[in-house]
Amino acid sequence: MSHPYFKDIPKIAFEGAESENPFAFKHYDKSKVLLGKTMEEHLRVAVCYWHSFCWDGFDVFGGGTFNRPWHGSVNDNQAALAKLDAAFSFFDKLGNPYFCFHDTDVMAAAETPREHVENFRFIVDAIEEKMDSAKVDLLWGTANMFSHPRYMAGASTNPDPEVVAFSALQVKEALEATHRLGGSGYVLWGGREGYDTILNTNVKQEMDQLGRFLNMTVEHKHKIGFKGDIWIEPKPHEPTKHQYDRDVATVYGFLKEYGLENEVGVNIEPNHATLAGHSFEHEVEMANAFGIFGSIDFNRGDPQNGWDTDQFPNDLRENTMALYYILKGGGFKNGGANFDAKVRRQSRDGEDLFHAHIGGMDLLARALENAVTLIESEKLSSFVEDRYAGWNTGVGEKMMDGSMDLDAMAAHALAQNVSPEPRSGRQEFLENIVTAATR
Amino acid sequence: MSHPYFKDIPKIAFEGAESENPFAFKHYDKSKVLLGKTMEEHLRVAVCYWHSFCWDGFDVFGGGTFNRPWHGSVNDNQAALAKLDAAFSFFDKLGNPYFCFHDTDVMAAAETPREHVENFRFIVDAIEEKMDSAKVDLLWGTANMFSHPRYMAGASTNPDPEVVAFSALQVKEALEATHRLGGSGYVLWGGREGYDTILNTNVKQEMDQLGRFLNMTVEHKHKIGFKGDIWIEPKPHEPTKHQYDRDVATVYGFLKEYGLENEVGVNIEPNHATLAGHSFEHEVEMANAFGIFGSIDFNRGDPQNGWDTDQFPNDLRENTMALYYILKGGGFKNGGANFDAKVRRQSRDGEDLFHAHIGGMDLLARALENAVTLIESEKLSSFVEDRYAGWNTGVGEKMMDGSMDLDAMAAHALAQNVSPEPRSGRQEFLENIVTAATR
Amino acid sequence: MSHPYFKDIPKIAFEGAESENPFAFKHYDKSKVLLGKTMEEHLRVAVCYWHSFCWDGFDVFGGGTFNRPWHGSVNDNQAALAKLDAAFSFFDKLGNPYFCFHDTDVMAAAETPREHVENFRFIVDAIEEKMDSAKVDLLWGTANMFSHPRYMAGASTNPDPEVVAFSALQVKEALEATHRLGGSGYVLWGGREGYDTILNTNVKQEMDQLGRFLNMTVEHKHKIGFKGDIWIEPKPHEPTKHQYDRDVATVYGFLKEYGLENEVGVNIEPNHATLAGHSFEHEVEMANAFGIFGSIDFNRGDPQNGWDTDQFPNDLRENTMALYYILKGGGFKNGGANFDAKVRRQSRDGEDLFHAHIGGMDLLARALENAVTLIESEKLSSFVEDRYAGWNTGVGEKMMDGSMDLDAMAAHALAQNVSPEPRSGRQEFLENIVTAATR
Amino acid sequence: MSHPYFKDIPKIAFEGAESENPFAFKHYDKSKVLLGKTMEEHLRVAVCYWHSFCWDGFDVFGGGTFNRPWHGSVNDNQAALAKLDAAFSFFDKLGNPYFCFHDTDVMAAAETPREHVENFRFIVDAIEEKMDSAKVDLLWGTANMFSHPRYMAGASTNPDPEVVAFSALQVKEALEATHRLGGSGYVLWGGREGYDTILNTNVKQEMDQLGRFLNMTVEHKHKIGFKGDIWIEPKPHEPTKHQYDRDVATVYGFLKEYGLENEVGVNIEPNHATLAGHSFEHEVEMANAFGIFGSIDFNRGDPQNGWDTDQFPNDLRENTMALYYILKGGGFKNGGANFDAKVRRQSRDGEDLFHAHIGGMDLLARALENAVTLIESEKLSSFVEDRYAGWNTGVGEKMMDGSMDLDAMAAHALAQNVSPEPRSGRQEFLENIVTAATR
Ligand SMILES: [Co+2]
Ligand SMILES: [Co+2]
Ligand SMILES: [Co+2]
Ligand SMILES: [Co+2]
Ligand SMILES: [Co+2]
Ligand SMILES: [Co+2]
Ligand SMILES: [Co+2]
Ligand SMILES: [Co+2]
Repeated sequence: MSHPYFKDIPKIAFEGAESENPFAFKHYDKSKVLLGKTMEEHLRVAVCYWHSFCWDGFDVFGGGTFNRPWHGSVNDNQAALAKLDAAFSFFDKLGNPYFCFHDTDVMAAAETPREHVENFRFIVDAIEEKMDSAKVDLLWGTANMFSHPRYMAGASTNPDPEVVAFSALQVKEALEATHRLGGSGYVLWGGREGYDTILNTNVKQEMDQLGRFLNMTVEHKHKIGFKGDIWIEPKPHEPTKHQYDRDVATVYGFLKEYGLENEVGVNIEPNHATLAGHSFEHEVEMANAFGIFGSIDFNRGDPQNGWDTDQFPNDLRENTMALYYILKGGGFKNGGANFDAKVRRQSRDGEDLFHAHIGGMDLLARALENAVTLIESEKLSSFVEDRYAGWNTGVGEKMMDGSMDLDAMAAHALAQNVSPEPRSGRQEFLENIVTAATR
Repeated sequence: MSHPYFKDIPKIAFEGAESENPFAFKHYDKSKVLLGKTMEEHLRVAVCYWHSFCWDGFDVFGGGTFNRPWHGSVNDNQAALAKLDAAFSFFDKLGNPYFCFHDTDVMAAAETPREHVENFRFIVDAIEEKMDSAKVDLLWGTANMFSHPRYMAGASTNPDPEVVAFSALQVKEALEATHRLGGSGYVLWGGREGYDTILNTNVKQEMDQLGRFLNMTVEHKHKIGFKGDIWIEPKPHEPTKHQYDRDVATVYGFLKEYGLENEVGVNIEPNHATLAGHSFEHEVEMANAFGIFGSIDFNRGDPQNGWDTDQFPNDLRENTMALYYILKGGGFKNGGANFDAKVRRQSRDGEDLFHAHIGGMDLLARALENAVTLIESEKLSSFVEDRYAGWNTGVGEKMMDGSMDLDAMAAHALAQNVSPEPRSGRQEFLENIVTAATR
Repeated sequence: MSHPYFKDIPKIAFEGAESENPFAFKHYDKSKVLLGKTMEEHLRVAVCYWHSFCWDGFDVFGGGTFNRPWHGSVNDNQAALAKLDAAFSFFDKLGNPYFCFHDTDVMAAAETPREHVENFRFIVDAIEEKMDSAKVDLLWGTANMFSHPRYMAGASTNPDPEVVAFSALQVKEALEATHRLGGSGYVLWGGREGYDTILNTNVKQEMDQLGRFLNMTVEHKHKIGFKGDIWIEPKPHEPTKHQYDRDVATVYGFLKEYGLENEVGVNIEPNHATLAGHSFEHEVEMANAFGIFGSIDFNRGDPQNGWDTDQFPNDLRENTMALYYILKGGGFKNGGANFDAKVRRQSRDGEDLFHAHIGGMDLLARALENAVTLIESEKLSSFVEDRYAGWNTGVGEKMMDGSMDLDAMAAHALAQNVSPEPRSGRQEFLENIVTAATR
Repeated sequence: MSHPYFKDIPKIAFEGAESENPFAFKHYDKSKVLLGKTMEEHLRVAVCYWHSFCWDGFDVFGGGTFNRPWHGSVNDNQAALAKLDAAFSFFDKLGNPYFCFHDTDVMAAAETPREHVENFRFIVDAIEEKMDSAKVDLLWGTANMFSHPRYMAGASTNPDPEVVAFSALQVKEALEATHRLGGSGYVLWGGREGYDTILNTNVKQEMDQLGRFLNMTVEHKHKIGFKGDIWIEPKPHEPTKHQYDRDVATVYGFLKEYGLENEVGVNIEPNHATLAGHSFEHEVEMANAFGIFGSIDFNRGDPQNGWDTDQFPNDLRENTMALYYILKGGGFKNGGANFDAKVRRQSRDGEDLFHAHIGGMDLLARALENAVTLIESEKLSSFVEDRYAGWNTGVGEKMMDGSMDLDAMAAHALAQNVSPEPRSGRQEFLENIVTAATR
């Protein structure tokens, strides 16, 4: 079943940290048990269909560089099947337990609603058949409602209700297909759900549309009996000037406003965190604090460039911290580690797809081991617990349980009549702990 | 009553656009009526105490450059009175209708709670007396809970409840003084309400403290009968790495989480919008959309520098847009136009304080006139209304009122079977309208 | 000669500031004389071929939205001629005195060197013929050496000398065509002349290649007798992670290193200044200081987004400042005001191209008038002259002419034995002057 | 000789990677030999005087938090001696081989030139005496010409020649003291050598002053027989809006302009690289390419904040890359690894100074070991060599040696008549090599 494009690539096996074989895992040992679960169960690694099998290497300043053999000139059902063969051959060699896709990634091009339904259902049948004999499962599905020109002014936030109706059709089909294919999540990334200029935009109206649309999606999930999760993927901008679901805190406010905070979570992407001015671990911990943590797109941005470079992760410390907070919050449930990542435009060979994914999976494996070390040592958590211990008793407890009000707290301060002595925050000491665990 | 430091400066009068006198208003004609209110009533301009009368010109890399005569070496009650004289002499010459202050701006230094209360009440008496014979009113008051070392790890979000008790005392005193002096607002800027490193921080605990503290403040407002508004001033970071009240959308989520969305609004500062990655008008319009618009600190940042430069406004287009959205939302009620702005460190003379404020007030006057032009012409608003007209009838209306669900919308799309034709967003056309109004 | 696509658009005429006609100039009065030259002669406005006639509205997240009738599926000679007709019809209606183009903008697609030469020469003949009967001249020409996959790792900085040879062919042809068509400049924008990762790059080798290539280009200019200028267009990054010609100061160092500072100047783009962390006027003034000012691409970026949005200018103050420094430096000679700007992706109609260019030209006209006001009033220049007057006499003069060394200056300070009193920089006063002139 | 403030801290010894003692080195084993030199000889670690012994923990929004016992209220000679005792006690316990200082860090406050000379010479005598019996050497010296108000508009770039004369005195004294104390370098960081607003600035004049001043400094170095190096420390801005020595490439152009490229090098700081939009390794490699690499200030910024946070390094990958390029360029000669780093404002205890420096030195030790691995394996260097091999023969060689010009290269392309096939850049493969070496 090996696809000719990948014919020179062996099945990727775990060989240990000292292996020099570029086509082997050095750290990703899927059966290794940590904190009672295997690495595979912890990470739930997914390959994304769009960047690896659809993108041809174009960018804003230049054309496609990849020449994938399955990229013929017309994207019809045959082309869709050819792409599917390549993708599943890749999954087979890499050994990733999951994949993710948009409707338009997998299907033949469609202009009208009927074509959309026909072509999508055709390929979903084919995917289902493929999955029967493959070892890969669907992590989550989604609908692409940003690439077609009809969505240039938004999908659910479009000024034209007819465009929103088309969106509804896509979401219905994609959600139902995700359900049918056994996916454990459904993601909405609002690529065009924002504005290019506030001058032509009714911000309140658009947010109301988005809130209503999301509620419709949640209702439909329950109607069809889908037990997986629904996640929004925050991003501050690009392609729009401003996107309504900017970051985790913004999404939380939005969910509260539209009564969705118990129904919808977040799919966090560190590249989007970077664009929004946040660290990766900040976004994870905010999602934990608000109880909306869902899944991760583990692709990084470039620290010096201001757009979504969607690169494979290579920062061990950053991913150690992110996984520490993910584990602290209980780890992945329906979510997982999707690589919404693309090889660089110059990485035009089939083998580059393997280098990228092997590097990413090995990095996550090391980060996971580091995070487990930090969890188990309790050096960080016990420091934090101790630092806030004052809130479990005395005036701290009374303020929080409502038995002391502003007057009472002020009276207490006056009665004490001292300016409290500040205590060291020990930042460098704590950073040294993380550095030591980053191996 | 002219202070010797300002002795060479005349009272600042309106002389019209062609005046070449640097010590005159060219556009700020306080009695001019626009949309049924005078310019003074529209803008409600306030001078801030801290930057103009307390700051000595120091920065992180160098010492004070100003040598204000009221900056003696010891900040005792006499020094506080001397500063007060200078401030009111300045107000008298400039003719600003309002001012704003922090507790520690106006009072003698204090280490203990008792000293704090004594010194603060002493100067509030003096301020009240000054105001009796002056033409300036208090726009809003606030407490400085970020400069003293005791607040290095936060005020209401401090790990130590004793520090929070001191904060409670400061807020109680400052809120009551604001009430007594006739202020129409009370601001909380959470300078240290965030973290320097997430490693030593319990984010959820700190947000809960902040939520509780804010509720205590609101309760106290009602208890003392203060009819003004309470506003949070969003800022993403600096001095902390991350501040919990990052931007308007984040604040809204926070207010919803702690049940405060009907009690607390926002004091927006464009410099903080810049730091958070937003345009000024975006923050205004988001506050309008969420119904939490309150007041403005009209100071800009430097587009090329990444910190809070707190400069006087000089961008006519930006402020035209902001005032357009402010007027569209109904204009200022209890809020106003505070200059949380400082002259540059090299602008060390008394006259520089006048150049800065005259320039700022003239700029706001022009921006206000431009905004009124845009409001009156309805060119922008009618375009937007027309663009979203589809939501008032048919499937648009039915989706929003809940009578069509995802299935129904999808079925509609299928029945129509067309890919809707996108319509031009006319961004350049609309930008030309704004450019033309920017005079 | 009106193209059907623009058939509803009238010839754009000057109607004055109070005109409400969107298809008229309100400020761009080409015959108006300022400082002894007409507006047209001052500004030398050019329309760019690529964004207006080649781009179909695609972005990284979505396909083309424009459906220009001349965008057939195959880019052959007939398609190139159809595009040429549209472009010249547009020029005729707009009345721009100049245009600019890349080789690949105007020609049929080519894969091999011979096809390149054939197709390019075919269309240059056609352009020449068009220009015979049109009122538009060529401002500058350039070669696109970044879009074709062969250039994915750079043109002159490519690791493969064969790619550099192809670049040489393109530059030779484009430079000769520019000469033949009467262009007064030739631009090199090094879109891929940088690196995606420093890991696979020999930075020194690549800069040496670029230096040699630029010297070859200059030699060829002299060989063929081209009297126009050669300009590099600085940009810090995008599409590459790092581009060698980052900003004006970097380009100057590069030119010095390779002995080109008297042969090559800069084509400054404010959008690239924004990306590099500079103000527009800074880049102009640095070019003046180094004597390498050449031409301007007058398109802005978005202050909140981190990529090259190439928007039409609408910031009156920014462009007033830029034109002030341009005039202060002597104004344009061979350079001019090119709009390397694209309408937004949602501005899909032919009329949007007109709104954009009319808005841009009117803005430059106002900015020019403002800049002339500032030049004529001498308020800024006399302040600066006075501030540095100390350098014309005494120790200032002696230090600069070399007659005082470090010892002598130190001895002078000791002999004086005073800490010099600093003088106010009057920043707000000077900003008020600019604000007043911005009308 | 242990200072009471550090009395509970032991001498810091190397205990190996598995030590859990926070007051021990886990990786910094000064005697370990790598590539023929000890770790100590490779890294040449220096502690900076200013952040560790002068700074009291203030920031723009709040006062000092540290309460160091040597910070009395008056900075006289006795206070300077007390600080010196503390510093040398710290050096003794930490075991750093070098330190660095500004004149004003070590001396009593001075207002006039004579006081400056007296107070500075007094303390230099005391430093010399201290060094006689200590194991610490001077890495480099410098003069603080940015903190005193007289320098608010620049030191050598001041509009007032008298201020420049004071600067000359400071540089003369500091350079001579550096020479006398055996320093191997002298650094100029131009904190105020830029502008706050271009409106009041003659950019060309100021750069000429800076160029002349630097030449005077170089002449003086030779006059007094100082054999060490002179380095400029690039920084893009802060405290100024724009600083003339923005980054390595800008400094190189400046040095070329004023004939200094063989006399002056750079002291690179990654925090400043971050602010300028560069990676750390980029700045190192640019300095290598231009032959001006000198020394490093190994302190990082915060990736999410836009100012100079001057934090201790903790990014192992970033510092591995930087040290790789440093070693590739030949390693440190007169330069070394200075920590221009400060503990966080909340890290108010004496022990925090140790955590910070131990963490920093251990990190550099690991990064050095990783870099040596990369150097020795030649995986990166051989890939790069192979990638550019085409330039050693054929048309590549001929173009570079000048025997082929533009015409010849173009003719070659035409004769070949092929579009060269691009080769994969293997970015992910190379990143995996770095990741594997990052341990
Ligand atoms: Co992304
Ligand atoms: Co993603
Ligand atoms: Co501010
Ligand atoms: Co403010
Ligand atoms: Co551009
Ligand atoms: Co350009
Ligand atoms: Co620094
Ligand atoms: Co430094």
